[in-house]
Amino acid sequence: MARRKVASIAEFSLIRAIARRFAGRAPSLIKGIGDDAAVIEANESVWWCVTTDLLAEGVHFDLKTADPRTIGYRAAMANLSDIAAMGAVPCYLLMTLAIPRRFTSTSIFAIYEGLMEACRLHHVALIGGDTSASRAGLFLGITLIGTTAAGRALFRHGAVVGDHIYVTGTLGDSLAGFKLLSERRSPRSTNRRSLSPPAADRRILIERHLRPSARVKEGQWLNREQLASAAIDLSDGLSGDLRHICEASGVGAEIDGGALPISPSCQAYAESRRLSPVGLAVEGGEDYELLFTVPPRMRATIERQARARGFRITRIGTVRHRRFGIQLKDADGIMRPMPITSYEHFFA
Amino acid sequence: MARRKVASIAEFSLIRAIARRFAGRAPSLIKGIGDDAAVIEANESVWWCVTTDLLAEGVHFDLKTADPRTIGYRAAMANLSDIAAMGAVPCYLLMTLAIPRRFTSTSIFAIYEGLMEACRLHHVALIGGDTSASRAGLFLGITLIGTTAAGRALFRHGAVVGDHIYVTGTLGDSLAGFKLLSERRSPRSTNRRSLSPPAADRRILIERHLRPSARVKEGQWLNREQLASAAIDLSDGLSGDLRHICEASGVGAEIDGGALPISPSCQAYAESRRLSPVGLAVEGGEDYELLFTVPPRMRATIERQARARGFRITRIGTVRHRRFGIQLKDADGIMRPMPITSYEHFFA
Repeated sequence: MARRKVASIAEFSLIRAIARRFAGRAPSLIKGIGDDAAVIEANESVWWCVTTDLLAEGVHFDLKTADPRTIGYRAAMANLSDIAAMGAVPCYLLMTLAIPRRFTSTSIFAIYEGLMEACRLHHVALIGGDTSASRAGLFLGITLIGTTAAGRALFRHGAVVGDHIYVTGTLGDSLAGFKLLSERRSPRSTNRRSLSPPAADRRILIERHLRPSARVKEGQWLNREQLASAAIDLSDGLSGDLRHICEASGVGAEIDGGALPISPSCQAYAESRRLSPVGLAVEGGEDYELLFTVPPRMRATIERQARARGFRITRIGTVRHRRFGIQLKDADGIMRPMPITSYEHFFA
Repeated sequence: MARRKVASIAEFSLIRAIARRFAGRAPSLIKGIGDDAAVIEANESVWWCVTTDLLAEGVHFDLKTADPRTIGYRAAMANLSDIAAMGAVPCYLLMTLAIPRRFTSTSIFAIYEGLMEACRLHHVALIGGDTSASRAGLFLGITLIGTTAAGRALFRHGAVVGDHIYVTGTLGDSLAGFKLLSERRSPRSTNRRSLSPPAADRRILIERHLRPSARVKEGQWLNREQLASAAIDLSDGLSGDLRHICEASGVGAEIDGGALPISPSCQAYAESRRLSPVGLAVEGGEDYELLFTVPPRMRATIERQARARGFRITRIGTVRHRRFGIQLKDADGIMRPMPITSYEHFFA
């Protein structure tokens, strides 16, 4: 999960550019490569959203910090979050497993249990997949299919200059939780533990890392009420995912560092480690919150509706012209380019 | 690709049983876990077939015997074959890649090129996927979506006692080709090469292994004309895949070893290695031919239509009562239980 070097990020951009070169077209294809899910017209009134993910041991998860049940749960949530970002209703899941010989059937059962726990929360049915051997680590291939009313989905490409930028929930908790889990395993842990935030905060942060919640209801609300001009889920971190929205929409963005929603637990963790909570919020991935843009005329409506529904949303900035780039305003009002870090799910 | 021990096969059956335990239901789900693809009702007139596969380096492919372009091509074909076995029209493909650091972008480009070569043959559009790092080998996650007329798909479960059993094409070529490729790398290869079948046969067999053809047109024909009572594609080998049909249909089967379609090249290879060509045909996987059952009243029709369309099909046996088990009749008319081998895509 360590930040990848910029060279590596560029390399991944290259690979994604290769995939886009081969992107296909078809009459019923609404959106192909380049969003949280592909969108296909199923019939006159229904669109299907299809997302797929490959989760690799030692990259997306580590068996030293997460048990098999947690791995299954998080794999499902990561994909549920992609469907949430489209504003769709998740329906069907397929999972393929490549299993190393060291795995017992009890562990495999636990992976499925975790997966299904997440699926049941959102009434998703497991409908397919397969298992094979792996000579290397454990790999999970997830495909999730959701539906939305035809003509209505949240894309990355609709943000317009002047739109407000919002996020759901709080940011940076997952990274803080991951750091706490990693510290437990490091030889310096005893020393660090004495500086730790209170046990309750530690539990909250670790829970947020191991058992994230996809914002499925929030996504459906934004989509149904047509409140958002663009949306994405925060898997790569605010810095990386905001960049995706800006690139797809051809815009820039100004983020107010002081406005970022940071939980008291994350604040306590940052203080205990002398880290910047804004840094955690900007760079931390896998929060699985939604980042979305809202036309100015909808601002009052969205805030009223969010309150009525008990959804936590926070306005964190404004969509700017492309030339503006992506800038982060600090507490002193000084504007700096947003750091180009993208959480590449790489363990240190 | 060596045959896995029976214990390991039992282990995989257990894992598949675990997956089935968690199999879900939904109003528009026609067929979940347990066929070549899941089938969902898209609307009153269209069903969707969704299949997904995870291909692992060292298990499903070996970079020593297959270049990146071939790996992409075969990955697409394996999934096209699953859609062919449902009698559906393949439409959309998503690919996720987990890439080790040693890979260059040229290799990645070649994987996509191979994938797209197979996709273009069947007018399939690449619509999604993603890439991530891998600490272990190269992994490819493929999801393929096809469509079929509502109410019409080829399942594994429709075989009835008395039905004829057919296959398309020839069997065992892929295994012979794989063995030839493996011999090239073994220290005893010079010795073996002197015994080799003619170069033309070697080329044919290696080509059949590296560049298989999914029987997409044949599957659509069987489905459209409602000629088959059950179908599956031969990825695990005749022994393993016939067992899947028998289990799903609650029947047994009698296979006439002398009737198995074996190509002259495979015959020449078997003779040069003193192997049983029937053994290669029964145990060899990844031929990607279709295995299907046909009600007796359709026999004349199917054979006439196949001739007219230039499809090679061969009657290889009869569906029997479950109590009969699965038996293979040899050249002397002696019946023996079909060996329980399943090609688990394991390299020796």
